[in-house]
Amino acid sequence: MIDRLIKGIKEKENPTVVGLDPTYAMMPEYLVKEMIEKHGKTPKAVAQMFLEFNKQIIDSTYDLIPAVKPQIAMYENYGLAGIETYIKTVEYAKSKGLVVIGDIKRGDIASTAAAYSSHIGITDIEGEKYDIWGADSVTLNPYMGYDAIEPFIDNCNNLDKGMFVLVKTSNPHGGQIQDLIVGKDNEKVYEKVAKLVADWGEEAMGELGYSKIGAVVGATYPEEAAQIRKLMPNTYFLVPGYGAQGADAEKLQGCFNKDGLGAIVNSSRGIIASYKSSTEFSEKEFAKASRAAVIAMKEDLQRIL
Amino acid sequence: MIDRLIKGIKEKENPTVVGLDPTYAMMPEYLVKEMIEKHGKTPKAVAQMFLEFNKQIIDSTYDLIPAVKPQIAMYENYGLAGIETYIKTVEYAKSKGLVVIGDIKRGDIASTAAAYSSHIGITDIEGEKYDIWGADSVTLNPYMGYDAIEPFIDNCNNLDKGMFVLVKTSNPHGGQIQDLIVGKDNEKVYEKVAKLVADWGEEAMGELGYSKIGAVVGATYPEEAAQIRKLMPNTYFLVPGYGAQGADAEKLQGCFNKDGLGAIVNSSRGIIASYKSSTEFSEKEFAKASRAAVIAMKEDLQRIL
Repeated sequence: MIDRLIKGIKEKENPTVVGLDPTYAMMPEYLVKEMIEKHGKTPKAVAQMFLEFNKQIIDSTYDLIPAVKPQIAMYENYGLAGIETYIKTVEYAKSKGLVVIGDIKRGDIASTAAAYSSHIGITDIEGEKYDIWGADSVTLNPYMGYDAIEPFIDNCNNLDKGMFVLVKTSNPHGGQIQDLIVGKDNEKVYEKVAKLVADWGEEAMGELGYSKIGAVVGATYPEEAAQIRKLMPNTYFLVPGYGAQGADAEKLQGCFNKDGLGAIVNSSRGIIASYKSSTEFSEKEFAKASRAAVIAMKEDLQRIL
Repeated sequence: MIDRLIKGIKEKENPTVVGLDPTYAMMPEYLVKEMIEKHGKTPKAVAQMFLEFNKQIIDSTYDLIPAVKPQIAMYENYGLAGIETYIKTVEYAKSKGLVVIGDIKRGDIASTAAAYSSHIGITDIEGEKYDIWGADSVTLNPYMGYDAIEPFIDNCNNLDKGMFVLVKTSNPHGGQIQDLIVGKDNEKVYEKVAKLVADWGEEAMGELGYSKIGAVVGATYPEEAAQIRKLMPNTYFLVPGYGAQGADAEKLQGCFNKDGLGAIVNSSRGIIASYKSSTEFSEKEFAKASRAAVIAMKEDLQRIL
């Protein structure tokens, strides 16, 4: 997956990931009206809005980007119907040649972690094999240590899959645990985690110099990002926080290696809800607006690459 | 939820939680045969096995226990059909008066955390309200700090819900992050997290002296558990690791307060798969075996209470 991702980034000259994190408030009114008329005020109606919304955004941007990142929480919010849309979104994005990063942030151990690894794996029922979730890669939480990561590694190596483990997140209170200073080493927790993730990554190296085990490193802390970059030169970063969360391209410089590789940058609302703050595009043109937002972001990122 | 839980513990004189974490390997052969005949070698078949299995176990144990804890990963492993069984299991357990702890270990921020909070909340679609997931309480991961917890607190206070935040987990590599020693204070990360969770807990106190925000504290580290108990006297512990993971009742003593309250103890395999190692019960009597295992665990725990 990491090699496919890097090829996509090079081909499209763009490390932008579109975050497919739809919310009800984000939906264009015409779509709300149409789906509520069809399905009532139900989770099914919202799930159908999300699916149509996602498909139009994928159609409008897939030639420009290497990957999408659907945030599963947005779909879980609408139960089974929502999760069905998540799965169909993953399938649809893959049919357009995109790498799909399932933003699931799961973190558990042993047989539980093995069960979660179905997100990037095959579920076998008496010899019948099912690719139930279909993602190319997932995000994972490291709080429980290696036991939460290990069950996913075989799938990385045998099924061309990948993962991004939380290291330093972009949110205001992320430092409550991640920035604690550890013992005599005068290192912070996130630096310790960065080193662990880099170590784990050696078990799943790709062919282009990067591991299939990547790291989530927030864009809102540029100095820390640059320092983490040095700790884990062969680890790809998934960088949230661009745009709506406040980081601009300059702040991202340290996330990249000198060859311009090493990081993908996610934007969700800033792309998919861009029509909301646009004077140029109507609500029916939300997908066109998202294309314009991707192009603007690509240009912004190219300034620093 | 925490007050209801405590009342249930007192009524049943039992702090045992049955972990409803079914796996395919755990299923009795007659149930495998029946469901595969009906539904083929499909996720639907496995999901139907799990539902029947769970219902029989709930029927056979609900009068003895205050709560069940379904582990959502086991159901996610079988996609939509599996998740439907998770939801039906939650509903069924609630219909028997049990408190249901959804072991989801989610951890994300802002609008994403708000979406996940539907697990203990109400999803509103243009005024129509849906209790989609139905759990009374969930488990959460603290790595991203308060931002991952805060969106759940309103539901705790307004909808009589609760949560248990990971503090010290029972798995072998749990210490990789949790046991790091922090700065000059000579405290470990999990102690810092314990204090944070206790602080957050003050925002959601129940009426019986305990907070609706509990903590997950593994049973495999008895000294640490006793020490964490002192750090957070008003926090209920959810204790995994009893039985199959190697802890016996003596190791749990420190998890409880002097009044015998303060902790619930989960056992999954040790109860629901007990028929597998039984000479007394046939596979068709798996539910009877689980009842016997609950009674044995209750007696074991009463020795220390």
